[in-house]
Amino acid sequence: MTIIRRVTLHESDGDTFESMAVFDDSRSTPVPGILLFPNALGSKEADFAYAEKLAALGYAVLVADLYGQGKRTSRADPDPGLYMAELNRDRALLRERLRRVHALLKDMAEVDPARTAAIGFCFGGKCVLDLARSGADIAGGVSFHGIYDPPPFASASITAKLLICHGWDDPLAPPESVLALARELTEAGCDWQVHAYGHTGHAFTDHDANMPDRGLVYQPAADRRSYRAMRDFLADLFD
Amino acid sequence: MTIIRRVTLHESDGDTFESMAVFDDSRSTPVPGILLFPNALGSKEADFAYAEKLAALGYAVLVADLYGQGKRTSRADPDPGLYMAELNRDRALLRERLRRVHALLKDMAEVDPARTAAIGFCFGGKCVLDLARSGADIAGGVSFHGIYDPPPFASASITAKLLICHGWDDPLAPPESVLALARELTEAGCDWQVHAYGHTGHAFTDHDANMPDRGLVYQPAADRRSYRAMRDFLADLFD
Repeated sequence: MTIIRRVTLHESDGDTFESMAVFDDSRSTPVPGILLFPNALGSKEADFAYAEKLAALGYAVLVADLYGQGKRTSRADPDPGLYMAELNRDRALLRERLRRVHALLKDMAEVDPARTAAIGFCFGGKCVLDLARSGADIAGGVSFHGIYDPPPFASASITAKLLICHGWDDPLAPPESVLALARELTEAGCDWQVHAYGHTGHAFTDHDANMPDRGLVYQPAADRRSYRAMRDFLADLFD
Repeated sequence: MTIIRRVTLHESDGDTFESMAVFDDSRSTPVPGILLFPNALGSKEADFAYAEKLAALGYAVLVADLYGQGKRTSRADPDPGLYMAELNRDRALLRERLRRVHALLKDMAEVDPARTAAIGFCFGGKCVLDLARSGADIAGGVSFHGIYDPPPFASASITAKLLICHGWDDPLAPPESVLALARELTEAGCDWQVHAYGHTGHAFTDHDANMPDRGLVYQPAADRRSYRAMRDFLADLFD
């Protein structure tokens, strides 16, 4: 196994984006491809390390840049959600960028374009949902502590299977938003599952999350459970 | 591996009960014990066969009789829920019977009494919850398409970990009852998970369930997903 990272620049509407391909270079045939959507901060070392775990499982991963090269924030910034907010304001633009990175994933030489999926964290969970809502031909998607508000335009039928891993005490996604999502996905014909974890807030997979006053806390049990659920879900899609 | 069934008669308040122990007789040391609570019909061949699958995984199982010897129904009966209704009317009596079969499980020579859990289907899911609500020292419990209304008396702190496998379209357990259960379990300090499956009604694990007008339908994907979740959950408890 020889897992490598390859910076992947792409242009769109005059902007340059910097995604990261992560895959096992010792494989000689195309493998299932996974889009990885980072949280609100944009891509970072933790995402690349996570992608390496997926690559070790036999997937080729694209850690997607949806903001543009250099547009990244940290939790210490005055406005960590700066770039996310632009795309939350323009969900059609978000959809366009999601489609482009999905096409980019399918174009990777290491990827079997007929077998792709998406996973994402926080805002990245919303990206998974919006990609599925766009009717993209991903086989499945996994949202970890995602945000569930639908875009302000009609969705397509959702052919992707979806696994929603959810902290029940997440202040950014209260129970009523889970109920609304369940209704939406049911009406869209989606094969969906929600795994809800008690005593679990937002950002439960994020080892660096430690803001209990805002409901953002790493939760080891929910992290472990959701990771295994994701791994089994992806295996079910492609095995 | 030599899996055997052993009819286990027990007396309580002048009544005779007939539970069934199922275990691998080739093991020389005690193993974790699992109480299996059948659906409303009471114990039947499908429960014994299920118990044999658990025994093959390394557990010693007691398929619990909560009704009394010979008190069994079938879906073709005029009132399939006859015996269940008696216990739904008297949740203190149900609790007493749950405690007795748990003690019986722990007394089995094949069982390590410090390592027990419970699973159940439909009314049996309610039994799992009520046993946990009683403060029983089970390590964990799994409810499949259970019923969530709490008993009309205060519950203990819930020390058992709980996995609730739930069909989102279950007419016997609508979304508001899931929300109420989440609140109850959170307040009781329970380590809980709900796995909710879209396009899935009641009785989704039951190969014989085929009453779509009443929302009782076997659902292969939810059956497979919940079985794996249960298997992994039990392994986490005892490994």
